[in-house]
Amino acid sequence: MAHDVSPLAPATLAAMPPVPGVRMAVTNSGTRYKGRPDLLLMTFPAGTTVAGLLTQSSMPGAPVEWLRKVLPAGKARALVVNAGCSNVFTGKAGIAAVNAMAAAAAQLAGCKPREVMQASTGVIGAILPYEKLVAALQPLPAKFHEDGWADAADAIRTTDTFAKRATALAEIDGVPVVINGMCKGSGMIAPDMATMLAFLATDAKLPADVLKALLIQANAQSFNCLTVDSDTSTSDTVLLFATGQARHRRIDSLADPRLKGFRAALNAVMADLAQQIARDGEGAQKLITVSVTGAASPKAARIIALSIANSPLVKTAIAGEDANWGRIIMAVGKSGQKANRDKIVIRVGGQAITAKGMVRPDYNEAKATAHLKGREIVLDVDVGVGKGGAKVWTCDLTHGYIAINADYRS
Amino acid sequence: MAHDVSPLAPATLAAMPPVPGVRMAVTNSGTRYKGRPDLLLMTFPAGTTVAGLLTQSSMPGAPVEWLRKVLPAGKARALVVNAGCSNVFTGKAGIAAVNAMAAAAAQLAGCKPREVMQASTGVIGAILPYEKLVAALQPLPAKFHEDGWADAADAIRTTDTFAKRATALAEIDGVPVVINGMCKGSGMIAPDMATMLAFLATDAKLPADVLKALLIQANAQSFNCLTVDSDTSTSDTVLLFATGQARHRRIDSLADPRLKGFRAALNAVMADLAQQIARDGEGAQKLITVSVTGAASPKAARIIALSIANSPLVKTAIAGEDANWGRIIMAVGKSGQKANRDKIVIRVGGQAITAKGMVRPDYNEAKATAHLKGREIVLDVDVGVGKGGAKVWTCDLTHGYIAINADYRS
Repeated sequence: MAHDVSPLAPATLAAMPPVPGVRMAVTNSGTRYKGRPDLLLMTFPAGTTVAGLLTQSSMPGAPVEWLRKVLPAGKARALVVNAGCSNVFTGKAGIAAVNAMAAAAAQLAGCKPREVMQASTGVIGAILPYEKLVAALQPLPAKFHEDGWADAADAIRTTDTFAKRATALAEIDGVPVVINGMCKGSGMIAPDMATMLAFLATDAKLPADVLKALLIQANAQSFNCLTVDSDTSTSDTVLLFATGQARHRRIDSLADPRLKGFRAALNAVMADLAQQIARDGEGAQKLITVSVTGAASPKAARIIALSIANSPLVKTAIAGEDANWGRIIMAVGKSGQKANRDKIVIRVGGQAITAKGMVRPDYNEAKATAHLKGREIVLDVDVGVGKGGAKVWTCDLTHGYIAINADYRS
Repeated sequence: MAHDVSPLAPATLAAMPPVPGVRMAVTNSGTRYKGRPDLLLMTFPAGTTVAGLLTQSSMPGAPVEWLRKVLPAGKARALVVNAGCSNVFTGKAGIAAVNAMAAAAAQLAGCKPREVMQASTGVIGAILPYEKLVAALQPLPAKFHEDGWADAADAIRTTDTFAKRATALAEIDGVPVVINGMCKGSGMIAPDMATMLAFLATDAKLPADVLKALLIQANAQSFNCLTVDSDTSTSDTVLLFATGQARHRRIDSLADPRLKGFRAALNAVMADLAQQIARDGEGAQKLITVSVTGAASPKAARIIALSIANSPLVKTAIAGEDANWGRIIMAVGKSGQKANRDKIVIRVGGQAITAKGMVRPDYNEAKATAHLKGREIVLDVDVGVGKGGAKVWTCDLTHGYIAINADYRS
């Protein structure tokens, strides 16, 4: 089921440079999608470290359980990703499938199965057709090259209407390093797939514990600030690989000041990718950025921002280009977090609408409506109780969402 | 903006007997709706007790704040309700309006302003046009009668497509008592109105503390088991009045065994009303009952049930009559509550679909699909960790919801 490219897709996608030592190839596995690649094999040089963050769901898929087992060692030599079947809720058969995939990829990459990372997305409850996938992997090493990031981003898509990728350069110790990233998913809204995957690689030389700390920081400001429809995945996976090919001196601590530029670049790549997912939310016509300030804590601010970003009434008002700010009041009120009704300030497109617990006498609704007719909607809410702030991205809720999700599998 | 009557509306609405001593009249106030009553004044005899439950929102409307002030005394002589303007987020002007409404109703009912209960629903942020409402109240005492419950249920509607009411008889001490109830709202989904109101009255003789305890118990199994779109109101109000006109001996304790029949009847009336709200969810085509068992506690079961009932992916799958049970797995997984993936049993229309962490080999999808083609959908989920259970009602998520909420105010 193909959909038109989202109207919010970036006008130009990043040209992806190689990450030295990272090689890859893609193919069509014949398992679900026709006429496009849906299987990726990527390999990393010896010494590559890896850090990962996984879904909090109590119903994780077999690939997530595999990663929970192998990630703590912090070492990776291969990544295998298929699109179209998630291998979630598949019992013992699912475990056998991930074991088989790891063994096959390890043989092709010349490493141990435990050094193989894997991720699958697609329909929940269907067992991974691993025999077909293993067969499809065999010719890939002959096609390996370092310049395949755009193809890789394309191969991991399920219902995504465009391939999502980003890149940045940074310096560590004066030595240039590259950070490449790709992701898939429409937040949590992709039907049945309900899944976000992101893979990043750098040639920086970073021990696994530092890599993990950097990933957690960047994730808190990127993928964790993203919601499309509040439906959390059974497969969410973010992996960051560091090959160590760059010739800077070793970094041993997150506190090392030489990480400043790298940290900023990683944050930028991941925030870019997260926004691309919101831009590809099913049925999305508008990208919405919700910023909350004045909350009791950053955590409280994030809960309030998500309450606004997940509210069907707020999202449908924006879809209808209706400056119905009372729905934002409602969403703050239901969040369970402290907010001062008499100090709250709501801004739509920068215009302050409220003061002293009511609408401002100078509120210009026509101006707010004009902002809502655009593609990029900015909502700022100061809740007037403290200094906590947070920002989240989402999209509007449209007929497109209903059409896609009510009709998909049938 | 009028909508067709929900296809889920009860085939017949209850014939409402009088509650002795409770008198009422309705009128059109000329403030918002045309051609139908939108203002209700109800009076109660001396000695009437009252108990109430109010929204947890941190952005409550002025009428809710009024009730927070007067409810603790447990005494009521009048109720005034208007539809079309909620008087929420209206600052000092909103407080002046509720004071004026209470004074006017008190004069007409011959009581103190503090004995006047009031509720308003409608657009957030607009100040109550109380001068018009006070003027419209003046002729009502001349029209008071005891037989006006159907009219009253009609007058409190905003975007409700049918008037919601229920009644039951019980005995206390062998003496018959009546319980009448009415409510409005489409859960939290009515655009701008985002509001549920319910008013119940009985001629039983019950002190305010017993009344409140009974109300809390019944509410936990009725209105608190209801969700349409997860958007919680700034005006939610449930009030239960007891006139004490029935000639049974006084009840002083919730533990009194003579309350057994009354408690059951109250629970039944409130559950009936709550289901009627789910049946009138905006755009609803199917009533969904979600029962969760085997959870760590009743509270955990309720959170899981609400996670399923609020999931856009579950609700759109049902709208599409697609037996996409993987989405139920997802919704359990994201709930944050304990669930055993390898023991979870999902039933759709009574048919067990899962066992041992995967789909059952004997699962008959055609049978599940046939169930989903009906109007009343039954989902049962045993999460396999304990003995906690809960039941919630909701409706499907359709194009009708988007059409109503994206286009309403403009």
